[in-house]
Amino acid sequence: MSERISRRKLFGMGAAGVAVAGAGAIAVRGAGGEPAPARAASTSDPVPFYGEHQAGIVTPAQDRLHFVSFDVTTDKKAELAELLQEWTAAAARMTQGQEAGAFGAVGGEPEAPPDDTGEALGLPASGLTLTVGFGGSLFDDRFGLASRRPAALADLPHLPGDALLPEISGGDLCVQACAHDPQVAVHAIRNLARIGFGRVSVRWSQLGFGRTSSTSRAQATPRNLMGFKDGTANLKLEDVALLREQLWVGPDDGSGWMTGGSYLVTRKIRMLVETWDRAPLAEQEQIFGRDKGEGAPLGGKAEFDVIDFDAKGPDGEALIKDDAHVRLAHPSHNGGARLLRRGYNYVDGSDGLGRLDAGLFFIAYQRDPHRQFVAVQRSLAGKDSLNEYIKHVSSGLFACPPGVRDAGDYWGRALFS
Amino acid sequence: MSERISRRKLFGMGAAGVAVAGAGAIAVRGAGGEPAPARAASTSDPVPFYGEHQAGIVTPAQDRLHFVSFDVTTDKKAELAELLQEWTAAAARMTQGQEAGAFGAVGGEPEAPPDDTGEALGLPASGLTLTVGFGGSLFDDRFGLASRRPAALADLPHLPGDALLPEISGGDLCVQACAHDPQVAVHAIRNLARIGFGRVSVRWSQLGFGRTSSTSRAQATPRNLMGFKDGTANLKLEDVALLREQLWVGPDDGSGWMTGGSYLVTRKIRMLVETWDRAPLAEQEQIFGRDKGEGAPLGGKAEFDVIDFDAKGPDGEALIKDDAHVRLAHPSHNGGARLLRRGYNYVDGSDGLGRLDAGLFFIAYQRDPHRQFVAVQRSLAGKDSLNEYIKHVSSGLFACPPGVRDAGDYWGRALFS
Ligand code: HEM
Ligand code: HEM
Repeated sequence: MSERISRRKLFGMGAAGVAVAGAGAIAVRGAGGEPAPARAASTSDPVPFYGEHQAGIVTPAQDRLHFVSFDVTTDKKAELAELLQEWTAAAARMTQGQEAGAFGAVGGEPEAPPDDTGEALGLPASGLTLTVGFGGSLFDDRFGLASRRPAALADLPHLPGDALLPEISGGDLCVQACAHDPQVAVHAIRNLARIGFGRVSVRWSQLGFGRTSSTSRAQATPRNLMGFKDGTANLKLEDVALLREQLWVGPDDGSGWMTGGSYLVTRKIRMLVETWDRAPLAEQEQIFGRDKGEGAPLGGKAEFDVIDFDAKGPDGEALIKDDAHVRLAHPSHNGGARLLRRGYNYVDGSDGLGRLDAGLFFIAYQRDPHRQFVAVQRSLAGKDSLNEYIKHVSSGLFACPPGVRDAGDYWGRALFS
Repeated sequence: MSERISRRKLFGMGAAGVAVAGAGAIAVRGAGGEPAPARAASTSDPVPFYGEHQAGIVTPAQDRLHFVSFDVTTDKKAELAELLQEWTAAAARMTQGQEAGAFGAVGGEPEAPPDDTGEALGLPASGLTLTVGFGGSLFDDRFGLASRRPAALADLPHLPGDALLPEISGGDLCVQACAHDPQVAVHAIRNLARIGFGRVSVRWSQLGFGRTSSTSRAQATPRNLMGFKDGTANLKLEDVALLREQLWVGPDDGSGWMTGGSYLVTRKIRMLVETWDRAPLAEQEQIFGRDKGEGAPLGGKAEFDVIDFDAKGPDGEALIKDDAHVRLAHPSHNGGARLLRRGYNYVDGSDGLGRLDAGLFFIAYQRDPHRQFVAVQRSLAGKDSLNEYIKHVSSGLFACPPGVRDAGDYWGRALFS
């Protein structure tokens, strides 16, 4: 099939109504003069797939998420590498608004199963990004990769308050699908799972219905399910120098195959929304250290005002308490550690006890999870006044390799060759 | 608080960035000269709340769903009626892009919990509709309503193939929240649950990420997770005479309080997508009796071609098989019964067996569920070749009362007074 064939071509249709792949994608330049990560011109356009870094990390956070973790079911390294090549080819297509492509079976013939499951037929690329990561368990003795495991991919320690469910934690491989249309994100994950049939099986998957972070100064800050603006003090794609320091793995970081990659931590954090909803407004604002309406730091006026941790109220007490979330999570409290947060709100039905099962699917990227996520979470876990209202129920740590350079490259090539 | 206050006013903010409630809402006229159900002018505008019928039935299907079923926990009829009044007032506000409003607690004071949970602050109305229904269990002996139970609300019979889980079926009350922004739908349900604290508790709840039906000829037909266009032969809001015959409860239908209302059937239908994805294209098309690309009936060319059930292939065999879904579901096969379908695609993570837990949250409105849904589902359950790939796991039947006429009226007033 030609690279330019449209999703609508799949079942022998004409080209009417086709979303022309690649049209409308623009390249922007970051503040530091470096090429900034590609982004779509509108919410229906494609995001370029090839590049130095994987898309879906600093790409302006799309509205919807489908995240999946896989267990590898083959024990042959060659089959695993082949799967990653097939996934890369399918991702290069789907992110440009094309169908998944033919793998194994001949496509489009009445006697064969269709190559693409079809539910995204006629839909535009919708800003789809697919970002792959490798879990620590991939580096056990099945594939002879043990010696290639980066130190940064060491298991996360048990942290105070963890109530992790193993069946929705970890995994050998992960794929983060972000898009402005959930049908497009779900379609992509499903087709990757289908291509992986016999080699991987779905371990857990999570839908996020609304982004709860901004990763660009051009985006408005969204709200989480506690009603607060979330993502204000996030690392943003415009912070080119900081990203080099805090986000991207460098050539001297130990594992050459990860240069240009980043480490991904996921935490599913259940919110006890019913209890939260009974907390007074003043208490809610003290817990975060920001006001609920504007998102301004207490003592400040506007959302992006610099936080003044020394500000005192008329009673002489600190406006931002010692156990406030932004104080404990702030770089000044954590040896300068910063995160690129990219989480999503979730609702998974109800919990059987009369309450909605809702919260934050926390996603953070960083150069070293032990110096960054673990440091911040250790400050929070011990002391954060937010802890009364949340519970961490799943955890994942994945090494996301650098971007795929061109059609001859594939996800994790430097690891497998 | 004033009726026109904006969602942004809630935490003592100015009016900057306010979505002016009511602006942009238009009233359109249906083909039959009757006032057609109100709809929003764009996906961010409000849908009018007051009217002869509840919004959210023929309203052009919005993109996202949050559906919730409640158990009533009080046994006082007066408290239940009061709750419905509070819900009505909150719904009248939230559907117009305003905050939920003050109920019980004083609002907006630092010492009190906020009146609104806040996560929709700054978001427009987004076409939100809230549609309420009463389950058969509400008519037991708790509230003295037994004699008011409509015959049409008799429990659905057990149907072949049913694999229903009681914990996600039924319920005393339901609310269907549809909107173009999932955050707005989730916010609405959550605030209704919060207002109901101590009187209702959440029994089950379901998120639908993408609509899988059209309810207006002005809408493009979306695709379900089997990749087929879904909603082609649906009842549409433009079919005014048919709606009177098939959708709306009439004054002679037995229960006066339901005049202008409609009966809602929900079925959560799990799809075995992995098995489906291995079925040949020709088999998939025979199962539905339509082609996958266009959605045309087999033997036809275009999506809206009239189905020719007598069409034969070159081999003399019927093109649309005896066990094809559209043959079995067609009115000609079911004593003329038709449905207004309004379902949503869902993905609820994975099933612990390596597969996505995905399918269709089927929603259908009708004048008499026993003559309509049950008749159609009986034809399908016995014979439909689709059955190999699906499983009905939950079921609900609710009597949705007529619309709220004005600010002095409330959901179910004719039942409670
Ligand atoms: C349900 C759980 C959580 C909620 C509701 C939440 C919410 C928030 C909010 C509202 C802010 C202030 C606005 C902003 O700067 O983005 C914030 C800041 C922040 N949060 Fe969280 N957060 C949660 C969990 C976490 C976790 C698990 C971490 C990392 C371990 C984290 C790290 C941060 C950081 C680094 C900041 C920025 C602090 C600063 O530099 O001012 N948060 N969070
Ligand atoms: C996962 C389960 C189901 C799937 C995937 C499905 C899919 C479809 C599709 C693709 C069509 C053809 C396009 C259209 O006219 O909308 C259709 C038609 C229809 N379906 Fe279903 N359906 C399902 C379950 C049901 C159920 C449970 C009922 C009711 C008991 C039902 C009732 C109908 C009706 C009435 C039609 C229109 C038939 C006609 O008049 O041509 N469907 N369905």
